[in-house]
Amino acid sequence: MPQRYFVNELNDTITGQDAHHITKVMRMKTGDEVIVCHQRSCFSVSLDINQQEVRYKIIKKLTNPVTVDITLIQGLPKHPKTETVVKYATVYGVSSIIFTPMNRSIAKLENSDKKLSRLKLIAKEASELAHRFDVPDILMIQSLKDLDLSVYDFVLLADENQKTTSLKDAFNIDISNLKIAVIIGPEGGISDQERQLLLSQKVVPVSLGQYILPTEIASLYVLSYLSVKNS
Amino acid sequence: MPQRYFVNELNDTITGQDAHHITKVMRMKTGDEVIVCHQRSCFSVSLDINQQEVRYKIIKKLTNPVTVDITLIQGLPKHPKTETVVKYATVYGVSSIIFTPMNRSIAKLENSDKKLSRLKLIAKEASELAHRFDVPDILMIQSLKDLDLSVYDFVLLADENQKTTSLKDAFNIDISNLKIAVIIGPEGGISDQERQLLLSQKVVPVSLGQYILPTEIASLYVLSYLSVKNS
Repeated sequence: MPQRYFVNELNDTITGQDAHHITKVMRMKTGDEVIVCHQRSCFSVSLDINQQEVRYKIIKKLTNPVTVDITLIQGLPKHPKTETVVKYATVYGVSSIIFTPMNRSIAKLENSDKKLSRLKLIAKEASELAHRFDVPDILMIQSLKDLDLSVYDFVLLADENQKTTSLKDAFNIDISNLKIAVIIGPEGGISDQERQLLLSQKVVPVSLGQYILPTEIASLYVLSYLSVKNS
Repeated sequence: MPQRYFVNELNDTITGQDAHHITKVMRMKTGDEVIVCHQRSCFSVSLDINQQEVRYKIIKKLTNPVTVDITLIQGLPKHPKTETVVKYATVYGVSSIIFTPMNRSIAKLENSDKKLSRLKLIAKEASELAHRFDVPDILMIQSLKDLDLSVYDFVLLADENQKTTSLKDAFNIDISNLKIAVIIGPEGGISDQERQLLLSQKVVPVSLGQYILPTEIASLYVLSYLSVKNS
């Protein structure tokens, strides 16, 4: 499969690090094909390379995949688990990731601008490798209380106290046009206080199976199930 | 939840590194409760600690979870991805893992005794953290051709050439008593030659969704779907 690049503007030129990657790392030549993506659209293009200047001509627009709109609300884990969350949830198709410190988070929201730009770069690279059509949004917020859950049609809470409701039970509905959110606690899980707060809203507690999953990969359980269900 | 230990023998004593963990790391005391597991059975036990000697009394046997029998046949990836495969597939409930070099494997099967004992330790620790009832077997074999696939009721091949058959289509059956295997290629995927070899046997090629998954976490897509389906 050809290399994929997410560009900020859809003109006929690739610049910056992507141009460097094409000319210096991949050593591509005029006539080589790559995929250029912008605002959830991807195009197969033919390159025209003149030294470091990389121009392209669109050959055809690719067909968008059928996706589910899933936001991961992730209790802030310790570094480098934030990076694992972003990399793996991105390849599993998450739409956006919101990190927030929760009661049991050991990590703090410090240098968040710098961390955020690093995480956005990881999301971009993972999107390219996974052949996504878009790059998920990454956000950091100060507190779970600042979240407006009313923007979602369906909010799940991964809850190890929940032994009976599986994803199959929770998603006994057509999900194709829903805006879904899933809340995953940090290491040590959500606290009782957080559970009360969330259950007093429209949040549905679910079991993520028989075993205790590490926080950095717990969302994959939900993302893969919804991907298969929607296939 | 109490700490969990997998023991080699079910007598009334915990020895070795587990005893060290109980007395020195966790600083437990007589009367503290832990869970002791042996041969797919787990027991809640009360400790009786006399200096470094750790004895226990069984309080009750725990109820075994409902599980699916899934073997992961994993194209040997580069280090340390082998460790990621073992850690994460274990917490997602895999029954056993067989590593084998495939055509596109860059890693080689060298020092396999030493690597295997390290991977078995990772599997044991991940099983404890995940609250499993058993530790998955880890094996290494020289070649895909040495595998006897006839021992499985159902063998899946994760195949990026396969765009139509999803897991939902492939598993349109009751899986509760089946012995299932899933084959995942190394970085770069399976080769055409391997695909031919496998398809000439009873192997079912399936799509793992819209995106290209990194080899070290591709099996989680299958493990989570089967866990939900069987719930």
